[in-house]
Amino acid sequence: MVATPEKAIGQPIARVDAVERVKGRAVYAPDLTLPGTLHCKILRSPHAHARIKSIDTSAAEEYPGVKAVVTHKDLPALDSDEQVGGEVTLDAVYLRQFLMASDRVLFHGHPVAAVAATSPHIAEEALDLIKVDYEPLPAVVGIEDAIKDDAPIIHEEVRTRGLEGRSDKPTNISVHMELARGDVAKGYEEADVVLEGEYRIGMVHQGYIEPQACTVDVDATGHITIYTTTQASFANKSQNAALLQVPLNKVTVVPLEIGGGFGGKGFTVPELPTALLALKTGAPVKTVLSRDEVFRATGPAPDAYCWIKAGANKKGEVTAFEARFYLDAGCLPGSALYVNNILVAGLSPYKLPNFQADGYDVLTNKSRSQAYRAPGLPEGAFAIETMMDELAEALDMDPIDLRIANITDDGAPMSDGMALPVTRFKEILETVKKHDSWTSPVPEGRGRGVAIGMRREGSGTSTATIQLNADATFSLIVGSVDLTGTRTSMAQIAAEELGVTVDEVRSTVGDTDSVGYSDGSWGSRITYVTGMAVKNASEDVIRQLKERAAEGFQASAEDVEYADRTFTLRDNPEQSITLAELAPKCVGMGLGAVIGTGIAAGVRPVTSTGVQICEVEVDESTGRATIARYTAFQDPGRAINPMAVEGQVQGAVAQGVGWALWENYEWGEDGILKNANFLDYRMPTALDLPMIETIFVGGPAPENPLGVRGVGEVPIIPPLPAVGNAVSRTTGIRHREIPLNPENVFWATHNGANGAK
Amino acid sequence: MVATPEKAIGQPIARVDAVERVKGRAVYAPDLTLPGTLHCKILRSPHAHARIKSIDTSAAEEYPGVKAVVTHKDLPALDSDEQVGGEVTLDAVYLRQFLMASDRVLFHGHPVAAVAATSPHIAEEALDLIKVDYEPLPAVVGIEDAIKDDAPIIHEEVRTRGLEGRSDKPTNISVHMELARGDVAKGYEEADVVLEGEYRIGMVHQGYIEPQACTVDVDATGHITIYTTTQASFANKSQNAALLQVPLNKVTVVPLEIGGGFGGKGFTVPELPTALLALKTGAPVKTVLSRDEVFRATGPAPDAYCWIKAGANKKGEVTAFEARFYLDAGCLPGSALYVNNILVAGLSPYKLPNFQADGYDVLTNKSRSQAYRAPGLPEGAFAIETMMDELAEALDMDPIDLRIANITDDGAPMSDGMALPVTRFKEILETVKKHDSWTSPVPEGRGRGVAIGMRREGSGTSTATIQLNADATFSLIVGSVDLTGTRTSMAQIAAEELGVTVDEVRSTVGDTDSVGYSDGSWGSRITYVTGMAVKNASEDVIRQLKERAAEGFQASAEDVEYADRTFTLRDNPEQSITLAELAPKCVGMGLGAVIGTGIAAGVRPVTSTGVQICEVEVDESTGRATIARYTAFQDPGRAINPMAVEGQVQGAVAQGVGWALWENYEWGEDGILKNANFLDYRMPTALDLPMIETIFVGGPAPENPLGVRGVGEVPIIPPLPAVGNAVSRTTGIRHREIPLNPENVFWATHNGANGAK
Repeated sequence: MVATPEKAIGQPIARVDAVERVKGRAVYAPDLTLPGTLHCKILRSPHAHARIKSIDTSAAEEYPGVKAVVTHKDLPALDSDEQVGGEVTLDAVYLRQFLMASDRVLFHGHPVAAVAATSPHIAEEALDLIKVDYEPLPAVVGIEDAIKDDAPIIHEEVRTRGLEGRSDKPTNISVHMELARGDVAKGYEEADVVLEGEYRIGMVHQGYIEPQACTVDVDATGHITIYTTTQASFANKSQNAALLQVPLNKVTVVPLEIGGGFGGKGFTVPELPTALLALKTGAPVKTVLSRDEVFRATGPAPDAYCWIKAGANKKGEVTAFEARFYLDAGCLPGSALYVNNILVAGLSPYKLPNFQADGYDVLTNKSRSQAYRAPGLPEGAFAIETMMDELAEALDMDPIDLRIANITDDGAPMSDGMALPVTRFKEILETVKKHDSWTSPVPEGRGRGVAIGMRREGSGTSTATIQLNADATFSLIVGSVDLTGTRTSMAQIAAEELGVTVDEVRSTVGDTDSVGYSDGSWGSRITYVTGMAVKNASEDVIRQLKERAAEGFQASAEDVEYADRTFTLRDNPEQSITLAELAPKCVGMGLGAVIGTGIAAGVRPVTSTGVQICEVEVDESTGRATIARYTAFQDPGRAINPMAVEGQVQGAVAQGVGWALWENYEWGEDGILKNANFLDYRMPTALDLPMIETIFVGGPAPENPLGVRGVGEVPIIPPLPAVGNAVSRTTGIRHREIPLNPENVFWATHNGANGAK
Repeated sequence: MVATPEKAIGQPIARVDAVERVKGRAVYAPDLTLPGTLHCKILRSPHAHARIKSIDTSAAEEYPGVKAVVTHKDLPALDSDEQVGGEVTLDAVYLRQFLMASDRVLFHGHPVAAVAATSPHIAEEALDLIKVDYEPLPAVVGIEDAIKDDAPIIHEEVRTRGLEGRSDKPTNISVHMELARGDVAKGYEEADVVLEGEYRIGMVHQGYIEPQACTVDVDATGHITIYTTTQASFANKSQNAALLQVPLNKVTVVPLEIGGGFGGKGFTVPELPTALLALKTGAPVKTVLSRDEVFRATGPAPDAYCWIKAGANKKGEVTAFEARFYLDAGCLPGSALYVNNILVAGLSPYKLPNFQADGYDVLTNKSRSQAYRAPGLPEGAFAIETMMDELAEALDMDPIDLRIANITDDGAPMSDGMALPVTRFKEILETVKKHDSWTSPVPEGRGRGVAIGMRREGSGTSTATIQLNADATFSLIVGSVDLTGTRTSMAQIAAEELGVTVDEVRSTVGDTDSVGYSDGSWGSRITYVTGMAVKNASEDVIRQLKERAAEGFQASAEDVEYADRTFTLRDNPEQSITLAELAPKCVGMGLGAVIGTGIAAGVRPVTSTGVQICEVEVDESTGRATIARYTAFQDPGRAINPMAVEGQVQGAVAQGVGWALWENYEWGEDGILKNANFLDYRMPTALDLPMIETIFVGGPAPENPLGVRGVGEVPIIPPLPAVGNAVSRTTGIRHREIPLNPENVFWATHNGANGAK
């Protein structure tokens, strides 16, 4: 780090994109209309499961204003073993099946055809003219139905993939993972109390404000430019190149301003039919999904069904632990990642000397499940952290003490046997235990719940480039889409390393031609991994500037030092040149342009940890739970921008509380979603929440030179169990079902505990 | 260079942008309309010279649909010593004065105010409502009038800058340069023949097809994005940042597809009033100049007045040489560069043991003169090469033999004393002398002329970045606008260095945020200097790939070799990995992204040389000269793309022939241009020209690893004298005035030689 009087890192700086967004001037995908643009609308399945016997598009094609209609017949041939990467890796044929149905529709809202017309209204009218002959098939809607032996099979070719290889018969369980340690039977013998419970968590949507939208423009040479809303421009490029079967250098993705993603914009959605229409018409084609389409046919978070049986001794030590976690994959075989998250990051905070844990990915006739902030972990934590609360209650122990009694030491084995990195979990729990949010008497009529969360992050690769301007300002470009204010934090890191102020660094996100490959903005990796790329690029700039200065000094670059915006010859401080003097000599007719590049990959994983305390009131007559007080403890490592970190924590808690109390996909038995709009799908508003107090604990992470940890995901893990435990402590009944909306709480308090066995 | 079976360099590959352009799909500045765009029209002076007593914009401001009006009062304060760079460096206050008049108008068409309205028609109507009170001043139109002692002075503050410092009285001569060698008086004593002549060359326009146009968009944070047609996006950025007084990192220039520049789009023109209106309204503002505005108020090439007196002995050796070259600067003090070009590159091909040469930049009430392919040299060459022809004629010598007798040896001093780089001039002239275009008998009724040209190039800095895609294709981005097919030649250089095919390299031009600083596309520097940057970036990619491969081999990167798309461990060839295998390991969750950057600066200058032979027929009754045969010999060094080089030569000859025979600014005595349209300003069409035969001579330039030389400029130097000499040999009268249009040739053949003394 360069010595400088201005410290950029650690300052609570407003987001560089704030004014643009607030004034409505930021360009989102629906704001872009290229000259001659055609508008696309998508015909969707009215059935949750059906065979497509025929599609007749002829009447639609002849409708005035319609320029093209595409169906699965317009898709190029695809190798069956081709894979596409996003946050997870999928079989390309399955992703394609999700985006455009071929022989069958697998969920209500499944795309069947798409129309490009001169106006969106004409395109919509033309959808009615497409005749699809369906043969309805039985739909499997719930996880617990799907895993029954006699359940209708969604994909005949699917065999369970697990440690034991593949099963030999068709099944709706696409993945089975398991981890185990010690001797569970012996553990039960050592236990003073043994409890068992079933936990059910509803399906929710990430609820990003901006629906998916894109414009695809194919130039006269066949080069495909995709303007879109995405968390991962390079993944979007590779997914679409694979689906369209063109080389990667024939696709450019231009990520526009994004109105939220939260994991739900890591895979391409409308780009495929839009691109097919653009290729067919030769004109730019634009698609903007409606909220109804977003709810039904993008990638919500999986609902889950969990079972846990656990035993503990009187000291609160968990001596035996058995669990099964079933996550809903939706209509397509997914990856084991979300299940894996629960089995590793979900269980590893606790020592669990004797455990057996199984995770399952289950196919149903729903849209494809996708990531949502710390994917899998809120569901898993609800089961695990509720069980921890139940054990504490049964043992009449302070639930924080019970957690401290079980917490894994830093460096001790995680559930998968790898060493736990530095978490400082005990230190944080000791801090929480002394904090007023926990020590103050619980007010009359309220209950208080606690829960913890952990996540590991730091994978993938990122690139950054920084160029020097003649007036000694800098332009920084990264390939990581800015979901959370990272343009600002990247400018802070660059400014700190370059020894200038944040204002002097313009920070932008490039398209996929203008910056090096960068993995997507997911997995809490941007401030950490992309931040390392920015740090490396800054160092490259300083190295080049030292070389340029050394030319003037007629000395070696190794003998040049940089501090206080000045390059000085170490052995002869009379020889010096300021950054402001050197910059114009480099840029222009002089010593040579300066552009620094930084690549980060293979960084050491870090953990992020958080503990949250929730206080609720419950209206007995309606079952309505109200959050009365909420305190989130978070170890952000070194907070590059404390204001942004606080915002991340508060945002994640708000989403977690929404999931805990209100949000839920309400399914009909026919597999048709009943509340695909923001009126009936109840997201929290500012009025529903108290001020969420955010307390930073811990300190700079020792694993990396920036000292940072991811912060975007962990804070959504504790809310489900923290709220649930608080509600249970308030009502005196153990609640094991999410959402804890008034209806569920009311019937639970009137009919007895739900989920208990 | 990487060994590879596919040789990309040297192949005649079609331009990567050809299909886009031919199909009308390329996006030029007028094609871009951002949502909510306002349209700008510019009010221009009806006088060639006048004092502005007042400007009243109130009625225009109140006109329905008008959103803002700007005048010089909207310009921020500017330091008087601030400089702005393009191909030449100017005082910022003068550039600003040119773009928006303050107290005086200096030429007919000088911008006085600008209006932004909801439609271009409303903006145009509103111009009539702006009341400007002018006090007309005497206008100085011609060079020969401007240098008279009693000429009206255009800028009272201007003093001649020359070797002797600054003159002490106001003058219209802003620059005086001189070079001399030996003893001219002694040279005349050694001469067997002494001749003297005056030469006049008309003012022409570069004649780019696309008028200047731009859109300026100011975001809510005040960041200014300029979408424009420019030869130099970084210069455009720095010019506008200086004029608007904002830091460089607050301006982004997006260079759109360009419809020709030829030197005339190196300085900002419509961007300043457009930006002022965008800042004032907060909306995007677009300006598209008309052809009339382009002719009157952009930057045509200077007209010139030259005088030469020379003596030669019977061997044809020029023993004495005196010359004065006056170039028309137009209304603003320019730089000495174009005059310098004549004195150095114009005179240095010849030994000239005794010479005295003076160059002058002369102010007149015209638009500001600007570069046009090899600026200054066609004018200078017309005088010098006509005099050489006159000497040959007087001595009854073959004009090629006379040139060979005088040609400067490689390494001998140029006119400025520096050593002449490798030119191979003698070898080329010997080749020409044996070629059919020179040895064949001159057909009845025709005359044949010869002339030579030389240019030095290779200055400035360029940057390139290359990223690797997972499928082993590459994306190359440079900061150099593609005027001449350089995206294609840059792809060829990258492909050759990377050992892949040209198709595997996508080649694009970045905006000023997405690539490092690069000087403008002028001075024949792109294939050479930007090519070196691309070569360096390619080598950086290979270096990184070797490091990644070495990780897999558990070896050192220095021991890894790359050939035939395969990385191999030198001492153990069993250890190898193909590029196709390595790429996906780097990009994605693996070894780390690969992005190569290359910076070129301070490259050694190279010369480019050409010789051209022209045959004409002249219709005695009309004076119309017709080109019957044209042969251009050019040393391109190593031709990266021979088809592109041939096109450059043919295009330059076509433009030179147009200048020689037809094109000309016809000025009224009032300083008002009489032919500001393509009907009356006669540019050549394909029907006016025979096939221009292009012959490559010489070979790879030894000065640089690519072996290239610039080729875009030299071929426009010989046409004026080659055509003139051919016409003179046909009519039997010495023509010393350009253009040799029918009127001039008719009167010369009927009244006697023009320009003779």
